[in-house]
Amino acid sequence: MPTTPLTLDATDPPAPGGCCTPLVREAADPESARELARVFKALGDPTRIQLLSVVAAHDGGEACVCDLTEPVSLSQPTVSHHLKILVDAGLLTREQRGRWAYYSLVPGALARLATSLS
Amino acid sequence: MPTTPLTLDATDPPAPGGCCTPLVREAADPESARELARVFKALGDPTRIQLLSVVAAHDGGEACVCDLTEPVSLSQPTVSHHLKILVDAGLLTREQRGRWAYYSLVPGALARLATSLS
Repeated sequence: MPTTPLTLDATDPPAPGGCCTPLVREAADPESARELARVFKALGDPTRIQLLSVVAAHDGGEACVCDLTEPVSLSQPTVSHHLKILVDAGLLTREQRGRWAYYSLVPGALARLATSLS
Repeated sequence: MPTTPLTLDATDPPAPGGCCTPLVREAADPESARELARVFKALGDPTRIQLLSVVAAHDGGEACVCDLTEPVSLSQPTVSHHLKILVDAGLLTREQRGRWAYYSLVPGALARLATSLS
């Protein structure tokens, strides 16, 4: 099976949140498949989908963890656990400012994932 | 939280393989989040990513289960189990022809999923 690069352009920064090679053009090599599956697995939970979309739709594309518990009706430790999975998958960034952690979408991460599906 | 419809156009057929409302425009409602998460969960496995991409890249966009065991180096029952998850998620169709089952991508399913990410 051909080996497809994780990014199409070697000068690009690493591609958090999924690789660029469209799935439907050529068979995915095992390494690309593992990387993509890791990101999709992070999205394979309704709470994480809601959290991601609340962060993205928030003013300035950034949300405090203190604003994320109410929309999903879960405790802050549970919300923080789900957010960590999204951060580890390269979909969100986390910045601690004083008492609270703030989360934003990683620029381009969802677009790259969408490219892999199209 | 606003309730977003699963399809943007009520005259569209049901949208297997994910809904159409972009995640980043407005916060996903629980029902849309559940539906999307179900499809992403199906994609959250490297073997299923490889199978989907082998089917998509196959001649005519269709592959016999007998052609899918070698690319992933797994037994036919295991491959059939993974394929069933992709069929149940609305990403593949299955057609039995004589001895073998044949799998194809559901037209538009990946594109709709990509739209939800963009």
